[in-house]
Amino acid sequence: MPLNSLMQTYLPPIEKELQAAVARTQQPRLEELHAMLAYHMGWEGDGAGAAATGKRIRPMLVLLTAQSAGEDWHKALPAAAAVELIHNFSLIHDDIEDNSPLRRGRPTLWKKWGIAQAINSGDALFTLAHLAIFGLEQTTNSGITLKAAQILQSTCLHLTQGQYLDISYEDQKFLPIEAYWPMIGGKTGALLSACTEIGALVADVEAKTRAAYQIFGRDLGLAFQVLDDILGIWGDAAKIGKSNASDLVAGKKSLPVLFGLSQQGAFAQRWLAGPICPEEVPEVAAQLAAEGARDYAQSEANRLTESALSALAAANPQGEAGEALRQLANQLLQREI
Amino acid sequence: MPLNSLMQTYLPPIEKELQAAVARTQQPRLEELHAMLAYHMGWEGDGAGAAATGKRIRPMLVLLTAQSAGEDWHKALPAAAAVELIHNFSLIHDDIEDNSPLRRGRPTLWKKWGIAQAINSGDALFTLAHLAIFGLEQTTNSGITLKAAQILQSTCLHLTQGQYLDISYEDQKFLPIEAYWPMIGGKTGALLSACTEIGALVADVEAKTRAAYQIFGRDLGLAFQVLDDILGIWGDAAKIGKSNASDLVAGKKSLPVLFGLSQQGAFAQRWLAGPICPEEVPEVAAQLAAEGARDYAQSEANRLTESALSALAAANPQGEAGEALRQLANQLLQREI
Repeated sequence: MPLNSLMQTYLPPIEKELQAAVARTQQPRLEELHAMLAYHMGWEGDGAGAAATGKRIRPMLVLLTAQSAGEDWHKALPAAAAVELIHNFSLIHDDIEDNSPLRRGRPTLWKKWGIAQAINSGDALFTLAHLAIFGLEQTTNSGITLKAAQILQSTCLHLTQGQYLDISYEDQKFLPIEAYWPMIGGKTGALLSACTEIGALVADVEAKTRAAYQIFGRDLGLAFQVLDDILGIWGDAAKIGKSNASDLVAGKKSLPVLFGLSQQGAFAQRWLAGPICPEEVPEVAAQLAAEGARDYAQSEANRLTESALSALAAANPQGEAGEALRQLANQLLQREI
Repeated sequence: MPLNSLMQTYLPPIEKELQAAVARTQQPRLEELHAMLAYHMGWEGDGAGAAATGKRIRPMLVLLTAQSAGEDWHKALPAAAAVELIHNFSLIHDDIEDNSPLRRGRPTLWKKWGIAQAINSGDALFTLAHLAIFGLEQTTNSGITLKAAQILQSTCLHLTQGQYLDISYEDQKFLPIEAYWPMIGGKTGALLSACTEIGALVADVEAKTRAAYQIFGRDLGLAFQVLDDILGIWGDAAKIGKSNASDLVAGKKSLPVLFGLSQQGAFAQRWLAGPICPEEVPEVAAQLAAEGARDYAQSEANRLTESALSALAAANPQGEAGEALRQLANQLLQREI
């Protein structure tokens, strides 16, 4: 299987590149700043290890794209590290903003070191990400480096715009379906779009191919998010009775919920009446499905999946890496629910 | 007076460039995100106006440096906007980290919109700063733009390192004098150093001249900070009896305080015994001066002032802008105390 074999090849250099980027803080008097970042990245402290680092999907996408577009994947390592550091910067700040005590089963950075140090550590990781991408100057040229830095920075603006919407939606009981896409486009679509666009940029392919890779990344992210929304209401956790894990209890403004609200039926009435408790989850989830929300969300996921896969076909990825990219997309999109 | 006349010439285009940079968030659904940033920048909301915007010293330094080094100051406007946006990003996050309710006499962003939106707005401003500097591509070339973006990003790493130290010092009763410089070098020296270095970079001067401008900016920042520390204990506010405004009451680890601690005398004994209340301020300040802290801090300020002015002389700034730069330095450094 190309994907597994390439992941085993790529993952150690990704981790090494990430560690080198974060090592910029390893200076006298700054040991604790480095320790906070190394803890968050999953390298140090209680619970450190593979379960704490996450899957490094984003840097994998960068490297697979560059290689499948005809470039030596090593050259894209600075960009691979950069996108993963941006992802992790956003997790540090999101955890404070969402008041989340746990991340991947471990106490969040702000829970361990306080809000002040956590905000500042996030800022440091944000900067380290952008410093990392300048490493492309050594592996490519100034033109590609500058363009990649610009794409990454525009992506961050998009991320903060999505996060602004997410926070502001919390206080709004009713939202139209259209409100969903700009939020999720910023929070999930933007960074995956940057992964494949920058990977293609490093390979210096023609504009049309780069655009195809970019759309592949973006729609892969959006489709994945919609599938995740479906799982959050009708997935395994709900099936086996862990209803308190349901997005319905968390009050999350996911796509099925916004569809349900637009129907102005029994679900909308229940939602607007106040918080849903775990015992009600099976009934409310069934009502939401009966009103067509699950089918609607699944059809949106299918539409986006088709768009992602057809953009990937248009990009015409080559060789083992191209095969692995198709596998990765299918793995992310065809999950058992 | 060249300084006043050039400030009147430069300030409106600086403000316009800043507003154009922040306008990137002016999109449908994002009106409130833009409003939060415009409020913090001093353009909108209660108390908007000159008193709320601050003096824009940093962008002035960028433009005066570029012009005095032989370049048309207009070309440096994207960099001028970028440094001011970085300064303001750091203020938004510092205000949360320090739990400060007021900034320039107005409620801070987090006080008005909550911590979650304030963290995210700071992140947005951070990104807008880095997007702004890419505007140099239109006024200079890719090489200068890439180098300027790198200097700005390294500066931000330095800022977060200084801020880490500042936060961590809060919990430490005793600190050696040496602990002062890396904190202040990051919090105050780094960004002023970037202002003059990037200004000189835009003018494409030789490396030696750029280094001289950079040292001028850095030591100007450090000298200014030490003078501010002296004012914080023995300045006007103390003289006219506003002792609650004293840095001694705030427990600030300023240079005179660290000197006093190193003397291990009566001041150190009082400091280590617990918080100082407003009534004690005149006596404790007099004791600290008697132990030599004021003379020590003043001699450090003199040393740094001399270093800044001799670096400026070595940079050999030309014309009206050069004269204005000398005036600005003298104005910042020779304040009545």
